[in-house]
Amino acid sequence: MSAGWSVAILGATGAVGRTMLETLADSPIAVRELRLLATPRGAGRTMTFRGNEISVTAVTPESFAGVELALFSAGAAASETWAPIAVRAGAWVIDNSSRFRMDPEVALIVPEVNPHRIPDEPAIIANPNCSTIQMVVALAPLHARFGLAEVFVATYQSASGAGGKGLQALETELAGGAVEPGSYRFPRRLAGNVIPQCDVFLSDGYTREEEKMVHETQKILDLPELPVHPTCVRVPVPVAHSEAIYLRLGSAVNLESARIALQAAPGVRLLDDPGAGEYPTADLAAGTDPVWVGRLRADRYDPRGLHLWVVSDNLRKGAALNAVQIACLLWDRRSADLTRSLP
Amino acid sequence: MSAGWSVAILGATGAVGRTMLETLADSPIAVRELRLLATPRGAGRTMTFRGNEISVTAVTPESFAGVELALFSAGAAASETWAPIAVRAGAWVIDNSSRFRMDPEVALIVPEVNPHRIPDEPAIIANPNCSTIQMVVALAPLHARFGLAEVFVATYQSASGAGGKGLQALETELAGGAVEPGSYRFPRRLAGNVIPQCDVFLSDGYTREEEKMVHETQKILDLPELPVHPTCVRVPVPVAHSEAIYLRLGSAVNLESARIALQAAPGVRLLDDPGAGEYPTADLAAGTDPVWVGRLRADRYDPRGLHLWVVSDNLRKGAALNAVQIACLLWDRRSADLTRSLP
Repeated sequence: MSAGWSVAILGATGAVGRTMLETLADSPIAVRELRLLATPRGAGRTMTFRGNEISVTAVTPESFAGVELALFSAGAAASETWAPIAVRAGAWVIDNSSRFRMDPEVALIVPEVNPHRIPDEPAIIANPNCSTIQMVVALAPLHARFGLAEVFVATYQSASGAGGKGLQALETELAGGAVEPGSYRFPRRLAGNVIPQCDVFLSDGYTREEEKMVHETQKILDLPELPVHPTCVRVPVPVAHSEAIYLRLGSAVNLESARIALQAAPGVRLLDDPGAGEYPTADLAAGTDPVWVGRLRADRYDPRGLHLWVVSDNLRKGAALNAVQIACLLWDRRSADLTRSLP
Repeated sequence: MSAGWSVAILGATGAVGRTMLETLADSPIAVRELRLLATPRGAGRTMTFRGNEISVTAVTPESFAGVELALFSAGAAASETWAPIAVRAGAWVIDNSSRFRMDPEVALIVPEVNPHRIPDEPAIIANPNCSTIQMVVALAPLHARFGLAEVFVATYQSASGAGGKGLQALETELAGGAVEPGSYRFPRRLAGNVIPQCDVFLSDGYTREEEKMVHETQKILDLPELPVHPTCVRVPVPVAHSEAIYLRLGSAVNLESARIALQAAPGVRLLDDPGAGEYPTADLAAGTDPVWVGRLRADRYDPRGLHLWVVSDNLRKGAALNAVQIACLLWDRRSADLTRSLP
């Protein structure tokens, strides 16, 4: 058996794809061969991985032959087309698009929360929505400690949540330029503004982003009836989403116990000394790995009520890093299998 | 009796004071004489009111002699000192500071909501916090129609909520400059960021701004036990606060009835056709008078749950306009008295 995996990244040139390349390079996964794939439009560029220049090529049905791991971040339509082909070729597919997330046959994984849902054989594994990932990482330890009865959340989502094109639109606006016709633009001017719309509207007035936060949270936490009440809002921040979360827990909150639970939780960094000016913000979280939690407050009216403020890099933990962390679990499992297969 | 009032504005040179001057000029109040007052530091400038140049003078105990109406926006300390003096001189004082808002002897007024609380004789009338005003204007008609059981709110507050100095700090940051030592700065860089702190922290982890939203909402709506769960957040927007509000009502929500109640409500402008891209945003609300409401959504889990998105100009309805609207009620009452006193 070879020393490493053959890995494919589909959508390598996007904002999440580039971050996948970075986080994969920093991971313990040995990579024998890396295929950078894109739609024909994105092909032809060159990117660097662990010191090697690699050309981006157009994806074809043959692209996945011999591939052990495929990371997808090229949108729902590309995932719909290529994920089944890659799995049939024998690859694990970790898909950052929304295409398979709510498919009851597909595991929706946050490694700190539900790693036991990863299947045994190569399959599609869905990477959750960015706003959902950071929320469930903070919620899981509180659910384990107190039980979770109800979730209220208002988001402050960065421009890069809409991809590299969103980041570019904000930068153009901030520089005083007009976003060129044909280029991506937010539903309203984002610079100097906040927009209560992420993704499209559904018939009952929820946005699809809000619906994702409801359904994905329920699925990941395995609480299909959990009431989640989200409002998703775009803010003129380049990278990192912030969330104002109010939880109604299953039992009375003890603030010190909540702190201890969060401090011990994998993936969480508690930064909560507001009197000393310590709480997480987007500028602090951008470029870092943790889900930052602060502003823990016991509610003044309901003993089961808890406020928290959760910030994370939406390109890293909210997308690329979470995907690579799933890949690392698969890599560790392979190493364990290898160990078990030793004489 | 003279044809108009003698009016004093204390703090005329600040962001709210300047807007008071504008909204007073646009009001039906006849002004016989306008005294623009400031602390000695702010004195000496000249401002224009209804075509007349008026010099700003330093406030002294004699400043209020013969004054019928005094508008205060110079901070809590100035209000503490000067408001009792002005009332003793026979003036109505409409005070935009937080100093007297929670004083049980002082009326806290939003004209659309509780005008009946205005006292009969010249007194201090407190003008509520900006975030509170726009929220209660939207809540009052829903409370009248359905009853109000619980309020969850996350704010998106503009830089000018911290006054002209806040606006300037954001502009300096956006222009790439460093805020000079000694100048006002937000607790963190605000450009490209969101800061979960407005005003100072209290011992239980609430900010004073969050506490204001709780207590002032309870007082204005005359619901002293109403649970209000706020998180107040500063965003890099120059003017206009936005609020993501989730209400638990006293009875099942009928969305159409909620729409009708809001459409008929004084001070509210309903802009709610998200499918057509219509919902309020800060850039739309800045410079306008209404409290804009949109994104009405029936909750998917609780028949008594209602989401709404509320945006208003924090310098106008959130401060100066509300104060001048209170003054207009006093002016109307005086006219009615005059009419009654006719032979």
